[in-house]
Amino acid sequence: MRMEEVLEQFLPSSELAPQRLHQAMRYAALGGGKRVRPLLAFAAGELSSAPLARVEAVASAVELIHVYSLVHDDLPCMDNDDLRRGKPTCHVEFDEATALLVGDSLQSLAFQIVAERPIAHSPSLQLEMIRLLALAAGSRGMAGGQAIDLASVGKTLNQTELEFMHIHKTGALIRAAVLLGAHCGDGVDSGQLDAVNHYAQCIGLAFQVVDDILDVEASTATLGKTAGKDAENNKPTYVSILGLNAARELAQELHQNALSALVEFGDQANRLAQLADFILRRPF
Amino acid sequence: MRMEEVLEQFLPSSELAPQRLHQAMRYAALGGGKRVRPLLAFAAGELSSAPLARVEAVASAVELIHVYSLVHDDLPCMDNDDLRRGKPTCHVEFDEATALLVGDSLQSLAFQIVAERPIAHSPSLQLEMIRLLALAAGSRGMAGGQAIDLASVGKTLNQTELEFMHIHKTGALIRAAVLLGAHCGDGVDSGQLDAVNHYAQCIGLAFQVVDDILDVEASTATLGKTAGKDAENNKPTYVSILGLNAARELAQELHQNALSALVEFGDQANRLAQLADFILRRPF
Repeated sequence: MRMEEVLEQFLPSSELAPQRLHQAMRYAALGGGKRVRPLLAFAAGELSSAPLARVEAVASAVELIHVYSLVHDDLPCMDNDDLRRGKPTCHVEFDEATALLVGDSLQSLAFQIVAERPIAHSPSLQLEMIRLLALAAGSRGMAGGQAIDLASVGKTLNQTELEFMHIHKTGALIRAAVLLGAHCGDGVDSGQLDAVNHYAQCIGLAFQVVDDILDVEASTATLGKTAGKDAENNKPTYVSILGLNAARELAQELHQNALSALVEFGDQANRLAQLADFILRRPF
Repeated sequence: MRMEEVLEQFLPSSELAPQRLHQAMRYAALGGGKRVRPLLAFAAGELSSAPLARVEAVASAVELIHVYSLVHDDLPCMDNDDLRRGKPTCHVEFDEATALLVGDSLQSLAFQIVAERPIAHSPSLQLEMIRLLALAAGSRGMAGGQAIDLASVGKTLNQTELEFMHIHKTGALIRAAVLLGAHCGDGVDSGQLDAVNHYAQCIGLAFQVVDDILDVEASTATLGKTAGKDAENNKPTYVSILGLNAARELAQELHQNALSALVEFGDQANRLAQLADFILRRPF
């Protein structure tokens, strides 16, 4: 896959010191994954006719932030997962301390990439994009979502509270992927950015709703991670709150809203629309 | 102390959701610490007649990266320390998962600050400064130094290998503090940046040599952390490799080299020179 090669080039060589850390960073980041965020960034880049090199940098940065969060989530003090994408998790393959540093280093690398590559038509816009990425990753974004998730284990959440968690935990970075991809081009005005933003928010939530449905439905073999783990950990999900049928209806509704937001763009939004379909119907 | 107030303003309020994470971030970042890196950034900013607001942002970002590294270092899978600055470490006061997210979030916040505040006379220079910070924090800088440190426990290092570790582990971020502080002004040419860089490298190593000396000499009470811990963990130090006297001579020599690098700046380098003295003679 093309994205694999792109990431490969951005990651430090495993022959560079400290070798073991670089090996572990490559182990965590390469060799699989759905690459949903890069796909979204590329599709949004197409919308704004963005140069490919810019979108590659942005897609890699967002994906590295995502990978770092997986490595840290899998640690014993968090989800304590042994399997990820069908392989031993980073701390199992290496050790906990190395996995901690892998996550830390991948985050730094993401910001290095968006600072050193030309990803926008002006340095000022580039600074704004870095700011968006930092916000999406931090305590008001993804990491904050993890904290809300931790605090919610064993608690009864209502749908609003669950949504608040997911808007942070997965929504923020998915939104960043779409917005940063769109910013790579020169031709998107603020009204169009609002539409793209709305698409991203719907797709981000739909992704999580579908995830919750799949967690219940899928077998360990197909998913590559331990299925039904959320239920087992007594974590609230859309399925546990709404039931399976209402969760499916919600996913459909979010899908429709996402597509509606794209209407004004015509054919140039085809790939974003396809991704919305893909996220809803993915068989994994 | 002024720096405390500055950091306080950059940190999210503890009343903002997720509250516990924000409380923990503030717990880790506020209430003490030597603030050596901010002091260096301010002194370097004085050298280049930099506007205060720019240096405040840069000093905060560097300090938050430092604090994040302390929080992660203290975790059970790393140094497993219970005390930091005389207080329970973040994972003892809160919990391990929260401490992990505190470190992650502080790193994001650091990049948010340098992306959203005007810290340089041009957006292009600002991007270069963000790149420097990311490099200093990542696998070729501070986090990489931690990995080398981990790999060196129980091994016999020579002085060159020990230096390689410290150039990464503490040197990279100290150098970033000085360079970013200098970049906040408009009047530093590349020859002067080389001189400042040389100063920063000497001071970074001197800092570590003095640390190793103090680790042997100081009592737990004065240091606020468990003294002699490095020796206990069988970690190589300048004292274990060179002996106490030669380590003291090395610190003196680095101190002299640091001061020599400042000569061309005259009085405008007074604060940087004072800090070199302070680092060498600090009684803690």
